[in-house]
Amino acid sequence: MNSCMRAWTTLILLLATIGYASPSRAEDGYELWLRYHPLPATQAAHYRSDVSELVASAATPTQAATRRELQRGLDGLLGQPLPLSDEVSHDGALIVGTPRSSALIARLRLPMQDIGNEGYVIRSVTVNGHTATAIAAQTDVGALYGAFHFLRLLQTTQPVEHLDVRETPRVKLRVLDHWDYLNGQVERGYAGASIWDWWKLPDWRAPRYTDYARANASIGINGTVLNNVNAGATILTPAYLPKVAALADVFRPYGIKVYLSIRFSAPIEIGGLKTADPLDPQVQAWWRAKANEIYQLIPDFGGFLVKANSEGQPGPEDYHRTHAEGANMLADALAPHGGVVMWRAFVYSQKNPEDRAKQAYDAFKPLDGRFRANVLVQVKNGPIDFQPREPFHPLFGAMPKTSLMMEFEITKEYLGFATHLVYLGPLFEEVLSADTMTRGKGSTVAKVIDGSLDGRVLTGMAGDANIGTDRNWCGSDFNQANWYVFGRLAWNPMQSSRNIAEDWVRMTFTNDAAFVKPVVDMMMGSREAAVDYMTPLGLVHLMGPGHHYGPAPWDASETEADWRPVYYHRADAHGIGFDRTRSGSDAVAQYAPPLAAEFNDITQTPERYLLYFHHVPWNYRMRSGQTLWYELVAHYTHGVENVKQMQATWRRLDGYIDAERYRQVAAFLAIQAKEAQWWRDACIAYFRSVSGLPLPPGYAPPQHSLQYYQSLSFPYVPGFSSW
Amino acid sequence: MNSCMRAWTTLILLLATIGYASPSRAEDGYELWLRYHPLPATQAAHYRSDVSELVASAATPTQAATRRELQRGLDGLLGQPLPLSDEVSHDGALIVGTPRSSALIARLRLPMQDIGNEGYVIRSVTVNGHTATAIAAQTDVGALYGAFHFLRLLQTTQPVEHLDVRETPRVKLRVLDHWDYLNGQVERGYAGASIWDWWKLPDWRAPRYTDYARANASIGINGTVLNNVNAGATILTPAYLPKVAALADVFRPYGIKVYLSIRFSAPIEIGGLKTADPLDPQVQAWWRAKANEIYQLIPDFGGFLVKANSEGQPGPEDYHRTHAEGANMLADALAPHGGVVMWRAFVYSQKNPEDRAKQAYDAFKPLDGRFRANVLVQVKNGPIDFQPREPFHPLFGAMPKTSLMMEFEITKEYLGFATHLVYLGPLFEEVLSADTMTRGKGSTVAKVIDGSLDGRVLTGMAGDANIGTDRNWCGSDFNQANWYVFGRLAWNPMQSSRNIAEDWVRMTFTNDAAFVKPVVDMMMGSREAAVDYMTPLGLVHLMGPGHHYGPAPWDASETEADWRPVYYHRADAHGIGFDRTRSGSDAVAQYAPPLAAEFNDITQTPERYLLYFHHVPWNYRMRSGQTLWYELVAHYTHGVENVKQMQATWRRLDGYIDAERYRQVAAFLAIQAKEAQWWRDACIAYFRSVSGLPLPPGYAPPQHSLQYYQSLSFPYVPGFSSW
Repeated sequence: MNSCMRAWTTLILLLATIGYASPSRAEDGYELWLRYHPLPATQAAHYRSDVSELVASAATPTQAATRRELQRGLDGLLGQPLPLSDEVSHDGALIVGTPRSSALIARLRLPMQDIGNEGYVIRSVTVNGHTATAIAAQTDVGALYGAFHFLRLLQTTQPVEHLDVRETPRVKLRVLDHWDYLNGQVERGYAGASIWDWWKLPDWRAPRYTDYARANASIGINGTVLNNVNAGATILTPAYLPKVAALADVFRPYGIKVYLSIRFSAPIEIGGLKTADPLDPQVQAWWRAKANEIYQLIPDFGGFLVKANSEGQPGPEDYHRTHAEGANMLADALAPHGGVVMWRAFVYSQKNPEDRAKQAYDAFKPLDGRFRANVLVQVKNGPIDFQPREPFHPLFGAMPKTSLMMEFEITKEYLGFATHLVYLGPLFEEVLSADTMTRGKGSTVAKVIDGSLDGRVLTGMAGDANIGTDRNWCGSDFNQANWYVFGRLAWNPMQSSRNIAEDWVRMTFTNDAAFVKPVVDMMMGSREAAVDYMTPLGLVHLMGPGHHYGPAPWDASETEADWRPVYYHRADAHGIGFDRTRSGSDAVAQYAPPLAAEFNDITQTPERYLLYFHHVPWNYRMRSGQTLWYELVAHYTHGVENVKQMQATWRRLDGYIDAERYRQVAAFLAIQAKEAQWWRDACIAYFRSVSGLPLPPGYAPPQHSLQYYQSLSFPYVPGFSSW
Repeated sequence: MNSCMRAWTTLILLLATIGYASPSRAEDGYELWLRYHPLPATQAAHYRSDVSELVASAATPTQAATRRELQRGLDGLLGQPLPLSDEVSHDGALIVGTPRSSALIARLRLPMQDIGNEGYVIRSVTVNGHTATAIAAQTDVGALYGAFHFLRLLQTTQPVEHLDVRETPRVKLRVLDHWDYLNGQVERGYAGASIWDWWKLPDWRAPRYTDYARANASIGINGTVLNNVNAGATILTPAYLPKVAALADVFRPYGIKVYLSIRFSAPIEIGGLKTADPLDPQVQAWWRAKANEIYQLIPDFGGFLVKANSEGQPGPEDYHRTHAEGANMLADALAPHGGVVMWRAFVYSQKNPEDRAKQAYDAFKPLDGRFRANVLVQVKNGPIDFQPREPFHPLFGAMPKTSLMMEFEITKEYLGFATHLVYLGPLFEEVLSADTMTRGKGSTVAKVIDGSLDGRVLTGMAGDANIGTDRNWCGSDFNQANWYVFGRLAWNPMQSSRNIAEDWVRMTFTNDAAFVKPVVDMMMGSREAAVDYMTPLGLVHLMGPGHHYGPAPWDASETEADWRPVYYHRADAHGIGFDRTRSGSDAVAQYAPPLAAEFNDITQTPERYLLYFHHVPWNYRMRSGQTLWYELVAHYTHGVENVKQMQATWRRLDGYIDAERYRQVAAFLAIQAKEAQWWRDACIAYFRSVSGLPLPPGYAPPQHSLQYYQSLSFPYVPGFSSW
């Protein structure tokens, strides 16, 4: 054996050692879309000439985090350590910083006038005769966002030679709302328990908190509400605020502020006061003192999220004060410190006989202009409650003098929990691109949210998080896409959810086109499939009572009328649907006149909203020429078939990705197929019993009797608050 | 560049690629003691000549699991793939199997007469003139256990050239009891939620279930009770039994049977009967039918665990039947299928004015000989409830005609939850090596448990699991040692807990002697430290009410007398301690006469049990010559100092292991130091207020006032059932 051979042998042994060092390291989804696994050799080799050294300082925590992320990402993707350098010494330098942190960046005089505090520029430049790429911003956080953008270009194998990127977020507050209780439970959570280990905080700061911050920063999320909107007062006590501060410390380098959900009656519960009346000077003083106490610990604290006078929560109406008076009192306490109030518009009363869909508008529209400048009114995307499909909320566009914040639900409370593959991008996009017509054609919801329609400065978008202690964060690999698309759309609500899905698939799985295309197609069709097998043609809220698992269109067990499926579908022998026309509840009147007219007219109403706005005879002729009953059965059936097609697609994709994630997706699709069938069969069995109509020819009857579906019960449904 | 150089360059790049492939892969404790990371090069090279090929069939699921584990382990440890072979082709073959599965093993005629169904032989042999190692057993599972033993030898760098190992478990049922509720909560769990994802079972069998089975099999655990002893009836319904069966399917190849905790009144709750009277023929028939139903799904189902007539659970006494009548009724239903009943002796009644320590003995001793052959009575290690220290339970040795099963608590309900570093090996060993004297000297608890003292065939040891969804399984890295030592001692209760600790440290962290020795020393002293800073000198149950977090010796808030710390310590101006002598509750009489005499006599009672058996004046002279009050303060103080020494030891060990686990241990030790100080200060403050005595000179006063400690309250304590 010559020396070369010996060297080979040694190296091969060494390789084997490394290869087998961690035999149990399976792909478990923990890395999310920040996997940074090595790119294919030719691609990596190509990029290695584009990126050959890193010029980035680490003088602040955010700069250090940025440099660490670029090293981690580029080392991983390119398969070799990226040298750090103080200067541009040869072609392929990557220069990162702000005019203040980097003399090199300052000298480049990049066009950064209007990019704001969070924007960035990425540009191919020449420095000392060498090609280089500059990631520049006005702030450290802007540069961090730019670094993640640059990494994404490599992760998705886009060219980086001639870059001229300029990005500024269109929405100011991009926030995750965690519905986490302090006992570890997550309301409507399907991914395990709360990731906040309150018990061990502030002493133990789990490394996962940093990975959470990295993931959020990578998609531009800049705020997190740590606790459930159904809030207790404990989070505001001296025992808990240092725990909150510890999390804030971890998140700060990543540009993420913490917010808290507060209990409006906290001055009574932990303040020893007799009232929480927002006009009471003692109450006002208590909140001011509490705000001071918080800001002492957390100088960049974001503010409060408030669910008041809704579903049993206390609020200003307990004292005959308005929502505006309640919100403003808190806003005044936070204003000196720069904090905001996010005040939820999701209010309704079961004592109010009015159509539930109308109540939030009725309550808030008259308050337009009455809120302080640092208040946002947080409005759910639709007037009911995060249904598979509902029309956009009529408040959007209706309160031009108020900052309206979008609330999307990322966790799939009504869309199949952890296991159903339902990509929410199309749902979000459908809402954001909806035209409110409030200032004429083109007055989209997105323009309300980004403030451009009414010239609002304080803007925001909230997503109710789907994150828990499950190793893969979100309960399933595909649920990660919903966190991802929320962040990307919050940054820029005008984006295409398909493009975002493609980025996500490439970063999360592979760049192989034979995988990317069918998976993106599958994702893009998945939400419509769920609408079809759950609540087609404008139906809403047919889910099981309370826990919202599975079909229960027959259910009238809830104490409150508007928690009952029968309230929403109103099916009887003649027809089905909720009459919200002028002759019905007149909810249509809450929309701008052209839309009101459209929704009021059964022939103009888009069929996807048909039964939301109209009570329609079973034999009504649809645009297809078939009856409503036929179309209903056809939609349900089509939903099931669509899931079976997803299964078939996935079967063809075996081998493109790791076995671990492949198998879990396959297992979950099997659950989805079973449950889609259940949804279809149970709903058809019930509606058939109400309509008295036979199944259209060619359609299979339900597998079981209606009585069977009605007999099912589900103890221990995850995410339901009655643990 | 010549071709050799080019090859080098390519390989170095390739190496870099692999090295950087998974930059986020931190050591997170998931791998437990089965890490299989590469051994140091010289050690690995040495072993590579001992183990050069693997001759093992994979014709059954257990054989396949065994071969997979050996490949995974040896590939990892030795740094290269181990070739499979059908024959011994050169020196260093590893031959695995049973006489039935392997002709090679059959031909070796190894001495396996008495090793039983789970024993194994590992022997260095010569085959066809080649050196080889045989792992042989009568059953596949025996061979699996042998494979884990062999792997352990390599993991702990012991020689494997001249092996002659022969192992048989001394205890038949080696069982983990999970106190998991079906809603995901774990009672007294400090490691996250339940690892059983009941919701997605049976459709989704998480890979973690297999890793759970591997870990258990590696230490000989052969049974698992999936649900809490405070059981509902739901687990026995047709909706849940297939979920149980799915877990049984995953565990079966690893020799692990599933058991269920059952609710004694299930015939009423899910059977529609009016009674659960064990002598009612309908009730008996219901349980027989239920057993048949279970065994149809799970042919090797283990049996039932029952908590009856204890802490609110229903039981036979509700119908004026004895525990034996209740247990036998279930035993008769299981017997045709080979199942057993594990019937808990942890019963006490708050209506009974008798010393709580005496009640289990009083209830069960008279029933000796009345239980069916397939019933085990499961007895906690001490008469109170898993305290940091208490004497062994007087039932051990007192029921020679009954199979008594040991119940240890692995989860640290009373020993610092997740964060305190307390190795329970010495506690377990102290109990097992305690001499009951019931058949003269040497009648140790271990001999009761392994059946040798009274010639019992059905034997068992149960451990209340400390396992949850935390990534490291047990809430802390060092808590893994408690799972580990439980399994090893269940296999052989005569073993040294120090030796087991050393194995664990080597497998879990490193074989570096400079690390192993101080860490084993630290572990071995850790339980005594906890006794000192919590409940020294025979004190018990001073913990906070209900949740058992922190010190509350003053507490009398519990509704029931014997849940109150003041019930246990009985401190007053004159002295402290519970008089259990003949002139007191006479609990001493439950022990064998020589022990009863010893415990009855304050001068003979070991000081570690002093206040458990005696009410002692504060100025009583201890063996040290100091007063009891002085010694009490000294013990509390010593406990705190001991934790500080653990911190100092750990500081010196930085760099020997990965940064991730190092940092978490350091953070948890800091919490432990803080809480040890709190325990000491609060207890001294309280006992000082009762005794009226000044602090002994040289001892620091408590940091805060007694009122301060009494004012503390703890919402959301983990593991407490009132979520």
